[in-house]
Amino acid sequence: MKESCGVIGVFNVRNALKVLYLSLFSLQHRGQESCGIVVSDFKKVSIHKGMGLVEEVFSELNFENSKGAFGIGHVRYSTTGCSSERNIQPFVVNYKGKTYAIAHNGNLTNSYSLRKELEDEGTLFQSTLDTEVIMHLFLKSKKENFIEKLIDALKKLQGSYALVIFTPEGIYGIKDPNGFRPLCLGKLDNGYIVSSESCTFDLVGATYIREIESGEILFINNQGLKSYCLPRKKISRCIFEFIYFARPDSKVFGRSVYVTRKKLGETLGKELPFKGDIVIPVPDSGNIAALGVARKLKIPLEMGFIRNHYVGRTFIKPLPASRELGVKIKLNVIPEVIRNKNVLVVEDSIVRGTTSTLRIKEIRKAGAKKVYMAVSCPPIKHPCFFGIDFPSKKELIASDKNSEEIRKIIGLDGLYYLSLEGMLSSISLPTEEFCTSCFTGHYPVEIIDFKGKEQFEK
Amino acid sequence: MKESCGVIGVFNVRNALKVLYLSLFSLQHRGQESCGIVVSDFKKVSIHKGMGLVEEVFSELNFENSKGAFGIGHVRYSTTGCSSERNIQPFVVNYKGKTYAIAHNGNLTNSYSLRKELEDEGTLFQSTLDTEVIMHLFLKSKKENFIEKLIDALKKLQGSYALVIFTPEGIYGIKDPNGFRPLCLGKLDNGYIVSSESCTFDLVGATYIREIESGEILFINNQGLKSYCLPRKKISRCIFEFIYFARPDSKVFGRSVYVTRKKLGETLGKELPFKGDIVIPVPDSGNIAALGVARKLKIPLEMGFIRNHYVGRTFIKPLPASRELGVKIKLNVIPEVIRNKNVLVVEDSIVRGTTSTLRIKEIRKAGAKKVYMAVSCPPIKHPCFFGIDFPSKKELIASDKNSEEIRKIIGLDGLYYLSLEGMLSSISLPTEEFCTSCFTGHYPVEIIDFKGKEQFEK
Amino acid sequence: MKESCGVIGVFNVRNALKVLYLSLFSLQHRGQESCGIVVSDFKKVSIHKGMGLVEEVFSELNFENSKGAFGIGHVRYSTTGCSSERNIQPFVVNYKGKTYAIAHNGNLTNSYSLRKELEDEGTLFQSTLDTEVIMHLFLKSKKENFIEKLIDALKKLQGSYALVIFTPEGIYGIKDPNGFRPLCLGKLDNGYIVSSESCTFDLVGATYIREIESGEILFINNQGLKSYCLPRKKISRCIFEFIYFARPDSKVFGRSVYVTRKKLGETLGKELPFKGDIVIPVPDSGNIAALGVARKLKIPLEMGFIRNHYVGRTFIKPLPASRELGVKIKLNVIPEVIRNKNVLVVEDSIVRGTTSTLRIKEIRKAGAKKVYMAVSCPPIKHPCFFGIDFPSKKELIASDKNSEEIRKIIGLDGLYYLSLEGMLSSISLPTEEFCTSCFTGHYPVEIIDFKGKEQFEK
Amino acid sequence: MKESCGVIGVFNVRNALKVLYLSLFSLQHRGQESCGIVVSDFKKVSIHKGMGLVEEVFSELNFENSKGAFGIGHVRYSTTGCSSERNIQPFVVNYKGKTYAIAHNGNLTNSYSLRKELEDEGTLFQSTLDTEVIMHLFLKSKKENFIEKLIDALKKLQGSYALVIFTPEGIYGIKDPNGFRPLCLGKLDNGYIVSSESCTFDLVGATYIREIESGEILFINNQGLKSYCLPRKKISRCIFEFIYFARPDSKVFGRSVYVTRKKLGETLGKELPFKGDIVIPVPDSGNIAALGVARKLKIPLEMGFIRNHYVGRTFIKPLPASRELGVKIKLNVIPEVIRNKNVLVVEDSIVRGTTSTLRIKEIRKAGAKKVYMAVSCPPIKHPCFFGIDFPSKKELIASDKNSEEIRKIIGLDGLYYLSLEGMLSSISLPTEEFCTSCFTGHYPVEIIDFKGKEQFEK
Repeated sequence: MKESCGVIGVFNVRNALKVLYLSLFSLQHRGQESCGIVVSDFKKVSIHKGMGLVEEVFSELNFENSKGAFGIGHVRYSTTGCSSERNIQPFVVNYKGKTYAIAHNGNLTNSYSLRKELEDEGTLFQSTLDTEVIMHLFLKSKKENFIEKLIDALKKLQGSYALVIFTPEGIYGIKDPNGFRPLCLGKLDNGYIVSSESCTFDLVGATYIREIESGEILFINNQGLKSYCLPRKKISRCIFEFIYFARPDSKVFGRSVYVTRKKLGETLGKELPFKGDIVIPVPDSGNIAALGVARKLKIPLEMGFIRNHYVGRTFIKPLPASRELGVKIKLNVIPEVIRNKNVLVVEDSIVRGTTSTLRIKEIRKAGAKKVYMAVSCPPIKHPCFFGIDFPSKKELIASDKNSEEIRKIIGLDGLYYLSLEGMLSSISLPTEEFCTSCFTGHYPVEIIDFKGKEQFEK
Repeated sequence: MKESCGVIGVFNVRNALKVLYLSLFSLQHRGQESCGIVVSDFKKVSIHKGMGLVEEVFSELNFENSKGAFGIGHVRYSTTGCSSERNIQPFVVNYKGKTYAIAHNGNLTNSYSLRKELEDEGTLFQSTLDTEVIMHLFLKSKKENFIEKLIDALKKLQGSYALVIFTPEGIYGIKDPNGFRPLCLGKLDNGYIVSSESCTFDLVGATYIREIESGEILFINNQGLKSYCLPRKKISRCIFEFIYFARPDSKVFGRSVYVTRKKLGETLGKELPFKGDIVIPVPDSGNIAALGVARKLKIPLEMGFIRNHYVGRTFIKPLPASRELGVKIKLNVIPEVIRNKNVLVVEDSIVRGTTSTLRIKEIRKAGAKKVYMAVSCPPIKHPCFFGIDFPSKKELIASDKNSEEIRKIIGLDGLYYLSLEGMLSSISLPTEEFCTSCFTGHYPVEIIDFKGKEQFEK
Repeated sequence: MKESCGVIGVFNVRNALKVLYLSLFSLQHRGQESCGIVVSDFKKVSIHKGMGLVEEVFSELNFENSKGAFGIGHVRYSTTGCSSERNIQPFVVNYKGKTYAIAHNGNLTNSYSLRKELEDEGTLFQSTLDTEVIMHLFLKSKKENFIEKLIDALKKLQGSYALVIFTPEGIYGIKDPNGFRPLCLGKLDNGYIVSSESCTFDLVGATYIREIESGEILFINNQGLKSYCLPRKKISRCIFEFIYFARPDSKVFGRSVYVTRKKLGETLGKELPFKGDIVIPVPDSGNIAALGVARKLKIPLEMGFIRNHYVGRTFIKPLPASRELGVKIKLNVIPEVIRNKNVLVVEDSIVRGTTSTLRIKEIRKAGAKKVYMAVSCPPIKHPCFFGIDFPSKKELIASDKNSEEIRKIIGLDGLYYLSLEGMLSSISLPTEEFCTSCFTGHYPVEIIDFKGKEQFEK
Repeated sequence: MKESCGVIGVFNVRNALKVLYLSLFSLQHRGQESCGIVVSDFKKVSIHKGMGLVEEVFSELNFENSKGAFGIGHVRYSTTGCSSERNIQPFVVNYKGKTYAIAHNGNLTNSYSLRKELEDEGTLFQSTLDTEVIMHLFLKSKKENFIEKLIDALKKLQGSYALVIFTPEGIYGIKDPNGFRPLCLGKLDNGYIVSSESCTFDLVGATYIREIESGEILFINNQGLKSYCLPRKKISRCIFEFIYFARPDSKVFGRSVYVTRKKLGETLGKELPFKGDIVIPVPDSGNIAALGVARKLKIPLEMGFIRNHYVGRTFIKPLPASRELGVKIKLNVIPEVIRNKNVLVVEDSIVRGTTSTLRIKEIRKAGAKKVYMAVSCPPIKHPCFFGIDFPSKKELIASDKNSEEIRKIIGLDGLYYLSLEGMLSSISLPTEEFCTSCFTGHYPVEIIDFKGKEQFEK
């Protein structure tokens, strides 16, 4: 279960390069495969990109010599491999001697047919990003000026996009009319900052202003802010940002993730048909919900899983493939707190179920009497087409199994998923304005011709 | 505050190289500067060493082609820089065509004079490790056989040492007669494993047997185990292993760190002269004590600090030096849980006080009413000569300031340190068998001529 | 004075990847900045590119696992720097899921206006290569089939181009109608090879067939060879290939470079108004002409300059800039052969004159009586627009100085340049079919809007 | 056939680091495997070492920040592989807080027994260099002062050594009493320079003073020069320095290599029993002798082999092993000058004969009528124990074959080796003061227990 991306944009701030670097750090959880920055001081544009984590890719940057005043950034998850270096975002082009760039979080659902039309007219594509389609649509638009060309191009798109666009004069922050993915606005120095999550603002010292509206095109330049609107569609915020993706110290869609996540835990505690002697979170994603569960049930919380903080992404490289080892190296159990206890494990969600199975086995080995699991969302049964890289439908354990079957596979004495209503009622936003398609299969947008993540690779 | 080292040794296990690799992972918290492995299949000895984390240094190892049956390993913290590559442990020598190696956790307090004597006789040193002294003392011993030469050499040493020695026939696990540092024995496959901490055994699937005795020389070869004794000295276990260093999922000196740490929190909660609305741990080192404090005080625990898991060691490299940024990037606060609350922050210990000062400032900025801090050990006033790299005495905030002065500097409404008696009473081991010199200044061993970490550098 | 490029193409040969690798080695003198290979086994296309020498860029290639049956290659000289990685040739595109690539030696003189027109239509360029223009012209052509589209595009070009084009079915070898740059055809295994120079054929074991005709489009696929013709223009072969660029063991334009170069030396010897005691070549470019001069004058040849073979391109990197040191490290003089002699130094050409000045100073320091210089071409007075990167006109020492002035600057007792007639008469090709514009300023093609090597950079 | 080493030392010169860097460049032909520099400004000692060529290893040096006033350097040839990093010279030790270093060209013939004695006393060795023995012998000497300890140690050595030693106060230049290897003294700035060859002096701007005497210990410090003598032995200069190793622009043993090498060619020409139409040198080692041969025979010299200057050491890496390709890539023939000619090829020496065989095949393929070879030294029949790494005796083609047999193997119409007397008479030094053991088998020093290049590896 991987998020596709995080995006960032700043305008008129001191040392924009450093602000972008720190901002990408704060969004690292949204994509660890590659990252990039495009920054300008109004004279010279610098591009910094690479495969890997923010701190690896930018380790040689010099923030003293090259500061910049505005720019955009991107962290990405996607397919691996050298061949995808050209797909690192922001997607940058040089057109008539000037630099333009796009950073995109989301997924277009009609990019396949749009690209085919463009190629038939003799258009060369440089990447296999759906994002590139936007650039060509813009350039080929017959409209007069920049903003009209941009609206002309965006109107042709379907699917999810939180975009930040870099132009020689300023930046754009854009959210698709369904408003699938989060994007918020802050104040920094004499300028502004837009980011996928508000935790960015805490790190760089910016002040939170508001969430970008669904369908809003916000232009930031030397004249300040200016807003344009795309035609309305049904608002469909991704509820998974609250359950798992966003950092607990962020606001997304205008709401605190920590507060929401604890509320999910409390609702879960209220609904739970069983109870144990102690509550154990699966760290760190289950921590906050577990607090809520323990509070509501009035039973003690114990840190029964200890996380090894030194396991990086390359740990597994020299080892013979072993999922079991991968799970054990990350979390170790404390037998002293588990032995002879009825243990209630709190998880944020279950995707394939394989990791949970291995963890429950460790809990049993440590001497638990009974082992229950409470999950702070409903069963995930359907793929996401709007920016979350779930495994394929047949790998989703809940796609063809009910709770009782899953309980047996994982090896639990009891398993309970938060109800759809319980989940929706825990968030202080209109319940009809969420996309819950991964639970229900009801997609808010027609999926025209999406052919999978590698649809443009041979 | 840095631990010097972690050591590991295995004999007669399947794929010893892989076991050593995983073991060093489990000890990574004891040293992140460099690491090394010496492994043998009884025919060929392989040496793998490098500056950096275990997963960086060994990323190219091939566990299929080179398995090994026995070997030793080491993770190390020390001074930085290329010049210290020769100081990476295990310290390996080739003597008469055979390979010998030593891995050392601890610090000799009379190595300066021992080395001077050896140099006066025309002995060349290859490193600036105190460990190398042991090797030359052994080689120059006039005793007849290996074990007698070894005892002859060890008797000349003062200070702390948990050693693992590699010879062509087997390995030695040795603890100094004061027993300063932990070292434990486990069973694995048809052989044995010794490690600084028992969390190693969980990862590699070994069974915990016992702690190595103070002054014990344990030899492991094809005949099994054989023990020898060094002359007795006063037992002086390092109490800081329980407070901060050891992983909570380890046993050290035969006792669970998690259970002890929670007990420290409970004792602290009992002694506390103040109380707040919520308890907030400084993650992750304060987590377990905070559980104990919250339990005892019966007030809610909140994860008020959120840790960024993607901050590696090189994050700060391209940035202009900024302690403040270093603190903020690691932990972010959740204003929603802090606002208008009386907050009780739980820390494991205070060394310089600078980090705490910055963190409390963030808590106040988030809108706390009052901010208290509870520390799960007494004030640290004296340097350690037995293997912990505290800053110099004058950098220790408690060396010349009382609690009230420290409270003001950090900016707290209340500050309380656990009492010495409270601390000792929380651990189920004889109170007179601990070294508490960092709190009391009473050193169990005379410090003859230790001249600092770089005593052998020019 | 730098050549722009060397190109290579093979079809239906055993281990095409290895043949391309060796071929690029043989053309390394034509470009040392970057190189690239595109190779196919009819199923999978592999692209290998990098900045640096052939042996650096391809050091990790595996010729066993990835052999290929056909492909093209390129070595390049151009501006330095990371920013030009996207300019490494072959220029490769993915169009409708298929790979096309172009390798280009030469320089288009109307690419600026062609590119502007394309951009006005909304075309995005990926590089700042003039070569890319050819690709877009081809894709936008309204003609029916591949060859007609190609001819349609090529007809719009002005300037010099020896092209090799990679398509999914075969390769094209193309020479512009003026025939500025060399390109020859050979037989290898059951297939064919085209290369800028015939020395490639010796190394890979191919047999020389013929020079590609001016204006010829040669297609090589599974049906064999097929030729098409572009409309005729005045033939204008680059005479500098014989004087300096091409390797002496090559045939270019169908003639042996070694034989031609020795003939240039003999003609020079015949014309020379002075004579010395010994002839000393400036190695290695002056070696062959010096043989001819010494033969004609009947005076002994001495290797008075010794070349250091270990000076690579990065030697100068850590040194403070010093042209003098750069010259001395490359060539050292033998005082024993120079002392008290009248020395006749033979150079292939003089560009800026600075290197010659430093070398003559060394000859004098070694004790020569008199020092003469004979140059095997006329004075270079004008820039080249057809693929040779001479310095700007004002840096060419002969652009505004006569021989007598140059003699004084270099510090010679006598200086003689080969006459234009002497030069032309030494080559067994029609004298009117050469481009001699760098000597005469008469350009065979109108220079419409060439704006310099970085015309497409901002 | 590989030289073992080149050594360099400077004292009291401006920017010693830069001078050492350039000096090692000038000696690169004497060793390409690794190199090192030890340099001091009387306050701080810097050590720079690495595997690879001078320009690779030192590419990151900063000559501005770290200049130095004195130091030593070394280039080395030896076995390959990471395991020999500890064997990179200069061999550096830190003794009582001070740095000492040795750079050694040559080979000790009694180091095996010397090392064994030292190990029996409990001495640890850090490398497998015979050079290290010298360091321990010096440190263990019971003599009073430095120079007496040094002489005490050197007296125990047998074999060849041109040494440069670095001490905190100055440098030593030392030649063994047999004087096997060259070492010369020059004047630079206000100080001095010693080097294996005088070509170093030309590059750095030093003035040649004299060759170091056989058995001389020359100490250079702030008081100037001071000489000490080792007990006399029979002088035995390596004649191969003139034939092949030394650069033609050097003086070695006080004589010009170029002049000597041309004289060898003239003597060869005089002795030759056959004659051809043209003389072709095997470049570059055969160039100078070929000039002498052509002069004496009065037949034209042609550059029939063209050398590819871009073939570095890693060219062969990705290729399937092929000696033939290795030969062809380095030299290509010019059929136009060879066709229908009787060709006389001049080589400096024949070792295995395999390369010559491949080259002669190329000459024949190019259409030569008859092919003769003249070699500017006698047949090499015996291994060298004094610093040249010939292949083993059985690989030397002349060890068990006479000229007629070799002629047939190589495929020649005639083969002639210079006579021993002819060789000795061509050099203006006493004929009895040369080591000619590789030709005659008469070793000037008893070979006590030399066990091959890897005698100290397991």
